[in-house]
Amino acid sequence: MTELTDLAARSDSTLDGALGFELLEASEDRVTGRFDVTDAVRQPMGIVHGGAYAAMAETMASATTYMHVHGDGNIAVGQSNQTSFLRPVTEGTVHGDGRRRHRGRTSWIWEIDFTDDAGRLCAISRVTMAVRPAPE
Amino acid sequence: MTELTDLAARSDSTLDGALGFELLEASEDRVTGRFDVTDAVRQPMGIVHGGAYAAMAETMASATTYMHVHGDGNIAVGQSNQTSFLRPVTEGTVHGDGRRRHRGRTSWIWEIDFTDDAGRLCAISRVTMAVRPAPE
Amino acid sequence: MTELTDLAARSDSTLDGALGFELLEASEDRVTGRFDVTDAVRQPMGIVHGGAYAAMAETMASATTYMHVHGDGNIAVGQSNQTSFLRPVTEGTVHGDGRRRHRGRTSWIWEIDFTDDAGRLCAISRVTMAVRPAPE
Amino acid sequence: MTELTDLAARSDSTLDGALGFELLEASEDRVTGRFDVTDAVRQPMGIVHGGAYAAMAETMASATTYMHVHGDGNIAVGQSNQTSFLRPVTEGTVHGDGRRRHRGRTSWIWEIDFTDDAGRLCAISRVTMAVRPAPE
Repeated sequence: MTELTDLAARSDSTLDGALGFELLEASEDRVTGRFDVTDAVRQPMGIVHGGAYAAMAETMASATTYMHVHGDGNIAVGQSNQTSFLRPVTEGTVHGDGRRRHRGRTSWIWEIDFTDDAGRLCAISRVTMAVRPAPE
Repeated sequence: MTELTDLAARSDSTLDGALGFELLEASEDRVTGRFDVTDAVRQPMGIVHGGAYAAMAETMASATTYMHVHGDGNIAVGQSNQTSFLRPVTEGTVHGDGRRRHRGRTSWIWEIDFTDDAGRLCAISRVTMAVRPAPE
Repeated sequence: MTELTDLAARSDSTLDGALGFELLEASEDRVTGRFDVTDAVRQPMGIVHGGAYAAMAETMASATTYMHVHGDGNIAVGQSNQTSFLRPVTEGTVHGDGRRRHRGRTSWIWEIDFTDDAGRLCAISRVTMAVRPAPE
Repeated sequence: MTELTDLAARSDSTLDGALGFELLEASEDRVTGRFDVTDAVRQPMGIVHGGAYAAMAETMASATTYMHVHGDGNIAVGQSNQTSFLRPVTEGTVHGDGRRRHRGRTSWIWEIDFTDDAGRLCAISRVTMAVRPAPE
């Protein structure tokens, strides 16, 4: 199984690295992560860019689904991402907590809650991953 | 009116800058932009990260809505972002082309198509912007 | 406050009545309801029509939001509905259980889980309600 | 190929019949339909129920995808439905006009615009259909 540390090593030079995303736990039905509110995740008004939540949700759902299907010769591919923004965040750390809502043969669905340092809900995401046979 | 060049200057140190997003045209009912496929927008497998499309859609919808409502003392705040991923992209440039589907008093809705250099549809987004009075 | 029984009386000749929707509990942060699997909610293949889940989610979120904002002179209007379909249902009763995820001044967000008689998750919905001043 | 008239015959006693949905054209990349604004599609306030648009979009996408994949031994199953509501409608006819945005091996995506008799946009839907081998 691909370990979180392997993924982290590979992620340094990717979007995850550019935005400072950190994956904490990635079990089969739960995934957690966080990112610090630096300029790299802000939009011009100084609040966290909506795309940062959407991207973090995508990273969380993709990484954990991939880790649990690739042992069977499958890959996980993002199919859709629906993120709603509830409360602006300007500083501190954003905490993501996701749980798997569906595990089908061809798709997994995750829902991720994002909270600020005070535990207030800031954004919610639903991510659908397609599970497909790995290319030869 | 805030000009594209002003926004660009302010965007250098933000998520837009970190991911290399470029806004091209931002009229009242059309918005276009693009980003190059560098490592900063890739996920670990080498394809464009789904969050890059979602974030670019958010940037495009936010910037152009903001530019057209703030003259009336309003701001534009992202409310929801629904992005579907159709085709993986590994290199070249991703081109975004958005049109406004709804202009209400309190919300604007944009739909953005993303294509690769060959003109193939790669992702589609629907972004809902809330329009609110600017804080004092 | 508008009572569930008032809403039910008014609902007999509406979509809710046509599809057999029943509202059970509608508190400020929780809403439950159900509908029997009759032909009126099936599609031609004999399974529950995806639109039945979406419509029931809309009814649940609208009714309970309306009941809790109209005392302040506001109305609740559906803004968006995102429903994912997880498992086909052919008979029995579909049970909806919703909780409020966001209560803002201008929007409320509900997430509703639908299960079959065996408690298996069949569909999930996220509904955004716009809260607006009631027309004079 | 299953004909529209066959589907219509089978639809009389289903949700489509209960809500008065009518399918007009269903080609491989375009689908149109309509429904009259009767009490069966209204919510208690007298406007068209949001679920009616979502359900009609589901019917349109499902029927036309099914018609074009079942010759190859496949079926089409609704996977997700995202509908945004733009303008209330109280009477007349609602007209749906959909176009296919994606045709993959395992999923098709449709976007449907709904207009009133004056041609004003009332709702927009994005429906993702999963294409799967027909059960034996």
